Amino acid sequence: MTPRGKFITVEGTEGVGKTTNLEYIKSWLQRNKIDFIATREPGGTPLAEQLRDLLLQPRNDETVAENAELLMVFAARAQHLNQVIKPALESGTWVLCDRFTDATYAYQGGGRCMDQATIAILENLVQGDLRPDAVILLDVSVQIGLARARGRGELDRFEQEDVAFFERVRAAYRSRADGNSSYHVVDAGQELDRVQQQLAIVLEQLGKRWLP
Amino acid sequence: MTPRGKFITVEGTEGVGKTTNLEYIKSWLQRNKIDFIATREPGGTPLAEQLRDLLLQPRNDETVAENAELLMVFAARAQHLNQVIKPALESGTWVLCDRFTDATYAYQGGGRCMDQATIAILENLVQGDLRPDAVILLDVSVQIGLARARGRGELDRFEQEDVAFFERVRAAYRSRADGNSSYHVVDAGQELDRVQQQLAIVLEQLGKRWLP
Ligand SMILES: Nc1ncnc2c1ncn2[C@@H]1O[C@H](COP(=O)(O)OP(=O)(O)OP(=O)(O)O)[C@@H](O)[C@H]1O
Ligand SMILES: Nc1ncnc2c1ncn2[C@@H]1O[C@H](COP(=O)(O)OP(=O)(O)OP(=O)(O)O)[C@@H](O)[C@H]1O
Ligand SMILES: [Mg+2]
Ligand SMILES: [Mg+2]
Repeated sequence: MTPRGKFITVEGTEGVGKTTNLEYIKSWLQRNKIDFIATREPGGTPLAEQLRDLLLQPRNDETVAENAELLMVFAARAQHLNQVIKPALESGTWVLCDRFTDATYAYQGGGRCMDQATIAILENLVQGDLRPDAVILLDVSVQIGLARARGRGELDRFEQEDVAFFERVRAAYRSRADGNSSYHVVDAGQELDRVQQQLAIVLEQLGKRWLP
Repeated sequence: MTPRGKFITVEGTEGVGKTTNLEYIKSWLQRNKIDFIATREPGGTPLAEQLRDLLLQPRNDETVAENAELLMVFAARAQHLNQVIKPALESGTWVLCDRFTDATYAYQGGGRCMDQATIAILENLVQGDLRPDAVILLDVSVQIGLARARGRGELDRFEQEDVAFFERVRAAYRSRADGNSSYHVVDAGQELDRVQQQLAIVLEQLGKRWLP
């Protein structure tokens, strides 16, 4: 029987370098000849990417209700899990994902101050007992992250939030990581090659634990 | 203080005549000089209508996960309630809605055989204790309803389901109405003017209860 694949997520506020460092993790997986897919949330299937578009597009005509946003995030996740993530893990393929449910606790929970218990209900409904095997949290001051992210052009609906929102997001991420052994916090405020040296240490630990 | 508006929903399987009879109810409301809005689900706001499009469009590339469908329905509902329905009711305006949560119990619960308890959790999450004041259920055999609906051209993702699916939808609707005094079942298998004679009786009852 093929062992279940490992599920690794990369998290952090805007512009911390998730997408950039995902490439580094991908090359580590390739070097180790691990069968994997790389994907992202919200998104990862045609329907889930359509939901991502609806979530991110700035709206002048209406305010998005917090509940509606939360349910759209979990709708996209349900689709992604059913179509992509679960079948991959079950067949032994590793899954590397740019954001996952920690982002919901951080953005909707921390940023929007929604009740954590509500998020937990939806998490259980959609995921059952599926949780990431490792969460790599890239942590950097909101100021630096936003400066990096905002260099990229037009702001999406989340990027338009104010600094206090992202401070709450960052704090929520850090508090989830705190004392939890499946979280690996990397100081992402350094030069990229220093960030990746730290990342290499994390990956080495995971490799020792998981690779034959 | 203006009294809260009344919330009336019109329900039934495909092609029973919901949209057609909504016009009849609208003219009754106008004749009685009642301030109202008419809306529909899924939909009723720009975002909720975008979600409706995602829900209804046929998909060749992927199967929509049941959970994803259910969460999208409630996401659209959360938006519709927050932006449109609740503000209207609170200001004393009546709301007439083409489908609402009974359709979720019927289609996702009955049709897709999803757990009613799951639907109830989401209903409470999104609606709190808000429920329709009256549900008008147009009831007709699946065969007649489908024949009417399928006369309209290309089939959406739900209309493509088989007869057994719609039999479960109809049964779920009927069982919700059974013995519940806020439901009014109208035999929609008759000629339209007979249907509307029955509808007039229901409206007269509601008027006696609610109008000064
Ligand atoms: N350690 C670093 N030092 C300086 N710049 C960096 C560093 N890491 C990433 N960047 C740059 O910051 C910008 C944002 O990086 P990236 O897109 O990877 O962030 P992200 O976390 O994926 O952002 P988003 O949350 O918007 O998806 C990019 O231009 C990237 O090249
Ligand atoms: N009592 C009736 N007798 C015959 N035809 C009817 C009757 N009521 C409605 N129709 C016709 O059936 C078709 C479907 O009606 P309508 O669109 O109102 O149904 P609906 O319940 O809104 O359908 P859907 O579920 O697809 O929205 C229309 O062409 C309408 O004119
Ligand atoms: Mg990114
Ligand atoms: Mg209709």
